[in-house]
Amino acid sequence: MTTQRQAALQGEITPAMKRVAQKEQVSPEEIMQGVADGVIVIPANINHDELDPGAVGQGLRTKVNANIGTSEDFPEVEKELEKLAAAVDAGADAVMDLSMGSSEGIDETRRAILSESPVMVGTVPIYQAGVEARENAGAIVFMTADDMFEVIERQCRDGVDFITVHCGITRQAVDRLQEEGRVTDIVSRGGSFMTAWMLHRDEENPLYSEYDRLLNIASAYDVTLSLGDALRPGCVADSTDRAQIQELLILGELVDRARDAGVQVMVEGPGHLPLDQIEANVLLQKRLCHQAPFYVLGPIVTDVAPGYDHITSAIGGALAAASGADFLCYVTPAEHLGLPDEQDVREGIIAARIAAHAADLTGGVAGAREWDEKMARARKALDWSQQIRLAMDPQKARQYRQQKNAQQMQQCTMCGQYCAMEIAEKALGEVED
Amino acid sequence: MTTQRQAALQGEITPAMKRVAQKEQVSPEEIMQGVADGVIVIPANINHDELDPGAVGQGLRTKVNANIGTSEDFPEVEKELEKLAAAVDAGADAVMDLSMGSSEGIDETRRAILSESPVMVGTVPIYQAGVEARENAGAIVFMTADDMFEVIERQCRDGVDFITVHCGITRQAVDRLQEEGRVTDIVSRGGSFMTAWMLHRDEENPLYSEYDRLLNIASAYDVTLSLGDALRPGCVADSTDRAQIQELLILGELVDRARDAGVQVMVEGPGHLPLDQIEANVLLQKRLCHQAPFYVLGPIVTDVAPGYDHITSAIGGALAAASGADFLCYVTPAEHLGLPDEQDVREGIIAARIAAHAADLTGGVAGAREWDEKMARARKALDWSQQIRLAMDPQKARQYRQQKNAQQMQQCTMCGQYCAMEIAEKALGEVED
Repeated sequence: MTTQRQAALQGEITPAMKRVAQKEQVSPEEIMQGVADGVIVIPANINHDELDPGAVGQGLRTKVNANIGTSEDFPEVEKELEKLAAAVDAGADAVMDLSMGSSEGIDETRRAILSESPVMVGTVPIYQAGVEARENAGAIVFMTADDMFEVIERQCRDGVDFITVHCGITRQAVDRLQEEGRVTDIVSRGGSFMTAWMLHRDEENPLYSEYDRLLNIASAYDVTLSLGDALRPGCVADSTDRAQIQELLILGELVDRARDAGVQVMVEGPGHLPLDQIEANVLLQKRLCHQAPFYVLGPIVTDVAPGYDHITSAIGGALAAASGADFLCYVTPAEHLGLPDEQDVREGIIAARIAAHAADLTGGVAGAREWDEKMARARKALDWSQQIRLAMDPQKARQYRQQKNAQQMQQCTMCGQYCAMEIAEKALGEVED
Repeated sequence: MTTQRQAALQGEITPAMKRVAQKEQVSPEEIMQGVADGVIVIPANINHDELDPGAVGQGLRTKVNANIGTSEDFPEVEKELEKLAAAVDAGADAVMDLSMGSSEGIDETRRAILSESPVMVGTVPIYQAGVEARENAGAIVFMTADDMFEVIERQCRDGVDFITVHCGITRQAVDRLQEEGRVTDIVSRGGSFMTAWMLHRDEENPLYSEYDRLLNIASAYDVTLSLGDALRPGCVADSTDRAQIQELLILGELVDRARDAGVQVMVEGPGHLPLDQIEANVLLQKRLCHQAPFYVLGPIVTDVAPGYDHITSAIGGALAAASGADFLCYVTPAEHLGLPDEQDVREGIIAARIAAHAADLTGGVAGAREWDEKMARARKALDWSQQIRLAMDPQKARQYRQQKNAQQMQQCTMCGQYCAMEIAEKALGEVED
């Protein structure tokens, strides 16, 4: 058995590489070379039968992920399958199942999502390990290293394409956090679990100290590691501090070890960042992690807009992707307030896709500028059915157009007969004739 | 009678300057100096009695404007007063009345808005002149230069604080447009009126050739000129082209002439721009227009998201403001599809305020970082009433929190008992004890 990376290193073009090349409008050789260089990953578990493979990385269309999954208060599987369908319909390239409902429901939810998802599926195994430890042993800190690896293996065996693993939050990183101090300390759930575990037991993080064990599992199922940033800033005031950068240094070293083991790997990043620190964060990650694909959670550019964090993160995500980030985790309007519902999922995905596409327009991503130019020509021609067809969310565009234009005018109701494009076309046309 | 600028040049601190200084947490002397240098404007018509003066420019909080006003299909004044109230409630710093409903209703709507608006009010007089020419003379091109100036004077006499005037679209600029060619030609309504007028009559733009007449009117009522960019790009493909830059060069020269006449002046800018052209556009405007305040219409960073242009413009607006733009014209979700309603107005203003504040966080704007830090501390403390109070839109934040959290838990329903901040606080606290 070989991973996509092992195949690429042997110069082999896999069916997944061919499929990705077709979707990205680049050659299969370029995809193979990118995977061999570690600048592209194809998260495609050998057991995820429903998957239509996609890729994340350099030169490719910026991808977007939707976080879904049950919580204690909303444990129903059906709701999450509806969110999966909404996310895929809205154009998500990936979903992460972050279920933390009751322990027996977590396996069931994940398996249901995997059996229905054509897009790559990610998880954070430590969540399930934490829930199980709490229910079976009484507290998160009572889980053993074996418990953690058992859950990781279980999830990988089921067919998960990528897993977030908080390997970089070591004793050293936590020391640095405590020395400097922070406004919001730790806002990563996995990070808080690992910190509580290490401090309570006075032991090193097993995901770091037994990293080879993790690499063996990932290699066996070709699961892509997404190295989690447990110490990501949870507010603008904590951004780009020593704790965050210490963890990033460790993640960079772990990237090399994964690559050496033939395991595909990407790195997660902040978080809350002011606009003027985004470009530097991307540069730093790319340099310290030797150009590994960068998966950003936002970034959210201000803390003060709960209810609108799909917008605060669209601003940050666009700038991050234009600076080189490869994969945007959506943020929904419900962020900081509660679990997103289906409508939040849809709004979150569209906002993230806007950010991704705005960035792709500035790079050489195949087809990006052509899409905008087609829309501009349809707009100029007042061709509404074409504008709606080309819209990122045709359903929303159609709704607005119908609702605002009961009389079915050719122009829109903002300008009516005073349509600038019509008046100008007539005026300029008269002269040219 | 003196304008704010004339007073500033004489070293006089006016009541408006004092009020602005108080709101911006800077000294009145700094405001006076900024107005004297032409890098700050205080749009405050001597006849706008209800106005609580505000300022736009260098070093100040980035401002946001809401476009409202009737159209042929929605001519009711009441609806526009509701939008005014919604805009002010959502935190707009300015509104523009762009009414183009039937000619008799335009004066009435403007006067009603002026009598109720505590924020600065702008207009585009050529719209009314165009509607009147069409109704009275049969076509826009039949209006005379006197008609244009008569409407400008009427609106200024009523108390309008700033007016958009398309003075830079000259024969030369239109020639350049026609030589290069464009996908969407002209998307500015005022620009299309002036172009049709010039080409049909084979005459120069009177707002350019008789610019001194305009300066006299503006000076008499202390109306701030907002030099309109008739040739702003209407799609990403047309951005930063020769037509746009030719007009900007002309606007720069007109800035100097306004300043010399003691008239306050700012400059409008694009429009549709890809992310990677925004910083250069701001730099160019600031340099060519000798640091005049810059009022941007978006910028919208992709053409393909009708229904979500409050988001495409929040991305562009944030980057523009972080690069030095001073004033953001909102774009609503209805853009490119129809006339915005009250809900669209609210969403547009909040999105623009997010963009403005994200930029202010990166500069030295008084109070900006403190706001975020207060929110972060409230979030860490799980202090929900404080989080809602501090939210940019408390109403929306409250709605979400209530709807997602029927059981009134202390945490939010995303993480429930697995709240990272709580777990981390407990773990880190145990060690420190």
